[in-house]
Amino acid sequence: MGSSNNMALVAGAGAGLGQSLLARFEAAGMHPVGLGRTRPADPVGMFHEIDLSDEAEVADRIGNLIALHGPPRIVVHNTAELVIAPFAETALADFERTWTSMVQTLVVLAQSVLQPMVRGGGGTLVVSGATASLRGGARFSAFASAKFALRGLTQSLAREYQPLGVHVAHVILDGIIDTERSRNLHSLDPSKMMKPEEIAEAYWQLAQQPGSAWTHELDLRPASEGF
Amino acid sequence: MGSSNNMALVAGAGAGLGQSLLARFEAAGMHPVGLGRTRPADPVGMFHEIDLSDEAEVADRIGNLIALHGPPRIVVHNTAELVIAPFAETALADFERTWTSMVQTLVVLAQSVLQPMVRGGGGTLVVSGATASLRGGARFSAFASAKFALRGLTQSLAREYQPLGVHVAHVILDGIIDTERSRNLHSLDPSKMMKPEEIAEAYWQLAQQPGSAWTHELDLRPASEGF
Amino acid sequence: MGSSNNMALVAGAGAGLGQSLLARFEAAGMHPVGLGRTRPADPVGMFHEIDLSDEAEVADRIGNLIALHGPPRIVVHNTAELVIAPFAETALADFERTWTSMVQTLVVLAQSVLQPMVRGGGGTLVVSGATASLRGGARFSAFASAKFALRGLTQSLAREYQPLGVHVAHVILDGIIDTERSRNLHSLDPSKMMKPEEIAEAYWQLAQQPGSAWTHELDLRPASEGF
Amino acid sequence: MGSSNNMALVAGAGAGLGQSLLARFEAAGMHPVGLGRTRPADPVGMFHEIDLSDEAEVADRIGNLIALHGPPRIVVHNTAELVIAPFAETALADFERTWTSMVQTLVVLAQSVLQPMVRGGGGTLVVSGATASLRGGARFSAFASAKFALRGLTQSLAREYQPLGVHVAHVILDGIIDTERSRNLHSLDPSKMMKPEEIAEAYWQLAQQPGSAWTHELDLRPASEGF
Repeated sequence: MGSSNNMALVAGAGAGLGQSLLARFEAAGMHPVGLGRTRPADPVGMFHEIDLSDEAEVADRIGNLIALHGPPRIVVHNTAELVIAPFAETALADFERTWTSMVQTLVVLAQSVLQPMVRGGGGTLVVSGATASLRGGARFSAFASAKFALRGLTQSLAREYQPLGVHVAHVILDGIIDTERSRNLHSLDPSKMMKPEEIAEAYWQLAQQPGSAWTHELDLRPASEGF
Repeated sequence: MGSSNNMALVAGAGAGLGQSLLARFEAAGMHPVGLGRTRPADPVGMFHEIDLSDEAEVADRIGNLIALHGPPRIVVHNTAELVIAPFAETALADFERTWTSMVQTLVVLAQSVLQPMVRGGGGTLVVSGATASLRGGARFSAFASAKFALRGLTQSLAREYQPLGVHVAHVILDGIIDTERSRNLHSLDPSKMMKPEEIAEAYWQLAQQPGSAWTHELDLRPASEGF
Repeated sequence: MGSSNNMALVAGAGAGLGQSLLARFEAAGMHPVGLGRTRPADPVGMFHEIDLSDEAEVADRIGNLIALHGPPRIVVHNTAELVIAPFAETALADFERTWTSMVQTLVVLAQSVLQPMVRGGGGTLVVSGATASLRGGARFSAFASAKFALRGLTQSLAREYQPLGVHVAHVILDGIIDTERSRNLHSLDPSKMMKPEEIAEAYWQLAQQPGSAWTHELDLRPASEGF
Repeated sequence: MGSSNNMALVAGAGAGLGQSLLARFEAAGMHPVGLGRTRPADPVGMFHEIDLSDEAEVADRIGNLIALHGPPRIVVHNTAELVIAPFAETALADFERTWTSMVQTLVVLAQSVLQPMVRGGGGTLVVSGATASLRGGARFSAFASAKFALRGLTQSLAREYQPLGVHVAHVILDGIIDTERSRNLHSLDPSKMMKPEEIAEAYWQLAQQPGSAWTHELDLRPASEGF
């Protein structure tokens, strides 16, 4: 039996926000565990390569982690699958892929962690949203439909699980996250991008909120971002 | 060649709202065509039994209808797949089924009709939403996530296709529709239910809006409904 | 006693939308009555010059109209007071003026008409909103705060009066209305402006909605308007 | 000259949240200054009795404070004026009073602090909202119209002042705050009320957010609160 009941699980723990979350949780003395498709170079804490949309694999892996460490105190859903294209050039497969990667993964993750968290006395589940969680923009039909779905699902989970002691929060990330990948993709001045470690701090603060004042939804954006 | 450019297509044309829509469109001189899983007893106009989530079948069937009648003037997406259960009793298959029945069907339908409508000079696409399009309630995780997705997708379609002349609208049906089925399911006084023919009138009026004053979203509820 | 129970009252009945509403209602056989600060050239139906924010004057005038014609079937609140300026250049008096002109006028109007409408068997109250009802943009602090207030008030009236039989609706006008004044103010191509008579049609349709399918809120914008 | 540039100003600093905010800011080493109608017994830090709706008095008092202490780092707008009554029993004076107490006070406060904060290099303005900021419920016509107005105004301030370096945030307090007064007013179990010191922590965290990840709006509610 390892450290009891201080596991922090990040599903979608790639380079960028995922790793910054794990670093923040580790700095606070949590036991950081990352899950994802691709092992980042030099991951924080343990990393499990896993297909997060695979129900059996996720149930098995998380079941093992819980058996070992107890139910997680913090769980973050942070998978991403961006598609930007006119609807006429967006295939049904693109819609399926965004849904599987972002919605199915939360269904499967929540099935594995929520009941153990209830039995373990609570904890926090944070779900990463985006500008497209609130606005279906042109060229975002696949991505926005999945991000909207994720928001509806997260609300529903909050309404079921908060009275049982699990805090469920949805964060609207309204800006470009500063990563090596986004610096290559976007011409945006990096000083106008969101720093992963500053976002991670906000997630950490959510997980610290005491039970009389829980946030279900907040937005985060750079000072310079129009909205 | 049949009546040109006055086809009104209802996807999800079961007994209840679907048939009332077709009746309203027929009364206005449109050529009503219903699509759906199950042929209702005594359908209004033509009815095609079809799996609306089957991309190839829908493309083929609608392609034939357009070849025969020209692009539709009105298209309604009205498929429904209700799941009400605690999250812990909702299977991944329930999430897949609500998504396939309500989101995939709109992707496939829109792929088949929007470009022909643009080329044909416009028209109106109306999508049926629900209370759960705006609010992820407890016990509605699967249904709300699909209805949220549908709303995000519809917004995206509006932003892409309205500048090209196709009006895209989303209707929040915030109440129980009065059908034989809902009378059996709910103990609600039928006088507090929404009449399908009165909803159909609102859809018809949306399709009549001139280009300087298009509605993208409206809600409909009984006078007696709290909200 | 004049025509019984078919009065249509427009508060804020200036040239543009106000007069188009009265024309639409008259065309449908209603008895049109306009109220406002300034008599337009050649008004439709009766026009009363009145300070719509003056509680006593409004109570008196509308009391007389109801004594003469019975309670109105349709009431529209359509007063406008636009202020666009940086917050640092917006005086407290600007906030007071937008509030008095748009919110106080609805309070006073609703106080005069709602109870008589309930006793008279119902009717419809429609309130004109704007883009700024949903979004507090830069340079719109005074205008947006008043339009937000109007929306909150209208929602509250709907929740109190719809169960009593009075339909209360809020219309988001998301575009520039095509009037002589707006053609002078804006460089926008008039083909991209909203036609007052097309907006008026939407208001009329709201007033026709049967009790099982009432809309509380809808948006209207030109096909060409980004949103 | 006192402590430079670490003043924390709370407008509406009565017993309850106002005093808890000042206590939290003081604990962090800020210089706490309370403003309000009525001096609470044993206030935290300095307290100035002042009519917060009086433009000249507020400008004068805050001008003096800034001359003495430099521009504030944190400003909270937290005035409250609750009216709950059917619309038919809500007087125009009730609407005026809620507006003056909650909206006019923010206009006047913001006029006094924002430009100095810009010149002083930034800071945070937090505005207290309520359930009624998002929903105009029955019997809340006056209160909701003022809280909606406050939200629109706050959004507008954020869009103007965030690019200038001042963080502007709006907090939806969706529950009853546990104070002596609310324990007398409500029959609610105090364990289901929001603790003022836990809310204060959330405000403090908002003021700590670094510039790449600012929250404009968040909600706070007890774990047990339905929403």
